[in-house]
Amino acid sequence: MDKPLAISMGEPAGVGPDIVLGLYARRHQLKLPPFCVFGNADFLRARARRLGLAFDITEATPAQTNSLFETALPAVPVDGDVPDTPGVASVVSGPAVINAIAAAVAAALAGDCRGLVTGPIHKGVLYQAGFTHPGHTEFLAELCAVDGNEPLPVMMLAHGGLRAIPVTIHVPIRDVPELLTTELIVETVQVVAHDLRQRFGIANPTIAVAGLNPHAGEGGAIGREDIEVIAPAIAQLKAEGINVIGPLPADTLFYPVYWAKYDAVVAMYHDQALIPIKTVAFEDAVNVTLGLPIVRTSPDHGTAFDLAGTGKASPSSFLAAIRMADAMTATP
Amino acid sequence: MDKPLAISMGEPAGVGPDIVLGLYARRHQLKLPPFCVFGNADFLRARARRLGLAFDITEATPAQTNSLFETALPAVPVDGDVPDTPGVASVVSGPAVINAIAAAVAAALAGDCRGLVTGPIHKGVLYQAGFTHPGHTEFLAELCAVDGNEPLPVMMLAHGGLRAIPVTIHVPIRDVPELLTTELIVETVQVVAHDLRQRFGIANPTIAVAGLNPHAGEGGAIGREDIEVIAPAIAQLKAEGINVIGPLPADTLFYPVYWAKYDAVVAMYHDQALIPIKTVAFEDAVNVTLGLPIVRTSPDHGTAFDLAGTGKASPSSFLAAIRMADAMTATP
Repeated sequence: MDKPLAISMGEPAGVGPDIVLGLYARRHQLKLPPFCVFGNADFLRARARRLGLAFDITEATPAQTNSLFETALPAVPVDGDVPDTPGVASVVSGPAVINAIAAAVAAALAGDCRGLVTGPIHKGVLYQAGFTHPGHTEFLAELCAVDGNEPLPVMMLAHGGLRAIPVTIHVPIRDVPELLTTELIVETVQVVAHDLRQRFGIANPTIAVAGLNPHAGEGGAIGREDIEVIAPAIAQLKAEGINVIGPLPADTLFYPVYWAKYDAVVAMYHDQALIPIKTVAFEDAVNVTLGLPIVRTSPDHGTAFDLAGTGKASPSSFLAAIRMADAMTATP
Repeated sequence: MDKPLAISMGEPAGVGPDIVLGLYARRHQLKLPPFCVFGNADFLRARARRLGLAFDITEATPAQTNSLFETALPAVPVDGDVPDTPGVASVVSGPAVINAIAAAVAAALAGDCRGLVTGPIHKGVLYQAGFTHPGHTEFLAELCAVDGNEPLPVMMLAHGGLRAIPVTIHVPIRDVPELLTTELIVETVQVVAHDLRQRFGIANPTIAVAGLNPHAGEGGAIGREDIEVIAPAIAQLKAEGINVIGPLPADTLFYPVYWAKYDAVVAMYHDQALIPIKTVAFEDAVNVTLGLPIVRTSPDHGTAFDLAGTGKASPSSFLAAIRMADAMTATP
């Protein structure tokens, strides 16, 4: 039997724990693969009670998960206190949130879990607790470093066969043109091509690269980066045998009929990738981190404090994240 | 009876004339309102023959259009030669393309036509013919100037009730942060609010304004423009009584269920507005120019030289542009 999936609980004041508990309650109906939640069992029990969910939650190891999953939700203990205060983020729970991620990554790296689904975190609280990374994904890359060498994590948003990857992510638009180098584009597409082959079973993926400027610069009339930065990256990637085309005008790239012709679209900045995926698949898109030695997916939503503890948060994206991690790692 | 609509023929080597001729052939089936085409009748006849369309095309004035439209396509003559060379743009036809636009605008300004639908042009050819404007829309603004004062033309893409307006348009991403001023955002939203009231009959429109940076800058963590440039514009607009909200994260704004809650979304740059509208309505979106003293719509596609003369170009967007101009100007 396949190893279980790992889920890191994420911010306890948000909707992540609610959704995981709600999905576990429907594990038979949804035919969910076994998973263990890295997080505090007492907190999970308190939240389950609050939501009116009646099932056992038991402390366990990843190795015990498969046999337990039928009868109780396996919770892998992590250090740190976790108060049950829906909607009210507390610095108290910061260490537990961070430890849960670290322990889940360690379990995936050790092969005790076959993949990791991360619950949404709230960076503001974590910064107060000493978190120093720009985001979740950068933290994962550091945890996956070998001899101090961090992999390049690449963020992909996916909905079925529609996949979008931003080359630059959480940076001001003003900084995008300087950050966008030929080397970064090449490395990003290399990671995408590699992982589409290795993780998604696409033998010879076709990757479209969006232009930076309107109409991909219109032959240089609207900015030079498409010619001077992006085109050389595409030439280099083609020379390496990667099936890549572009730079293509971004506004006509994401019409689903065209988008579906490519195995992935690499976009130049955050909104260029995230606007189309959220426009077509708002509650169902999955965030997949490529480039890591482990499989990591996450729902494409935040902590939604206003819905925490109510049971009203949509589980669609989290469920899609579990299904994608499962599909990427299950024995055929 | 309402005055006719004006259609400017656009680039004769492109698909614009094909589509107009094809739509005229189906005028009964589609219940099209009367329109006249500003362009060369001999050229239109040659293109119709090429497409196998058998109907009369007759030189006419806008005033003769309504009575003629049933039996023949009214063509309002413009100066300049127009060869029928599908797919091969020629500098020879440049003056006629420019004159057609100018004459159609004059007819709309004079009230002889109630609105203008413009066929797509090819700027490269027009530049060779002495055209000096950055684009179609800027030329229209100049033609609409009163005592040398040009109106601020505002580009809107629309599909049913989904409307998106970019504040900056055909400029490099690198230049967007500098071009984006509080004053420009205020003026753009004022035009949008005014025209939604006057042209679309929305008494108190709700307008959402997108942030520039990812997550609308995340409270200043990802760029300062959302706080320092966009927020003051919104405050000023609210003080003027305009129902405006923002800056909102652009990636979650265009999910159609949310988008439909606003009468329009004002975006900060070209792709931020055009990616979502083309993603949801690739062949059906209409380009509407707000801020002009005349109603102007156009299809949201280019000249598509590879399809010219084949009859295979989709008429959806051109038809939607005619319907929108009709709806904006028809007597209730």
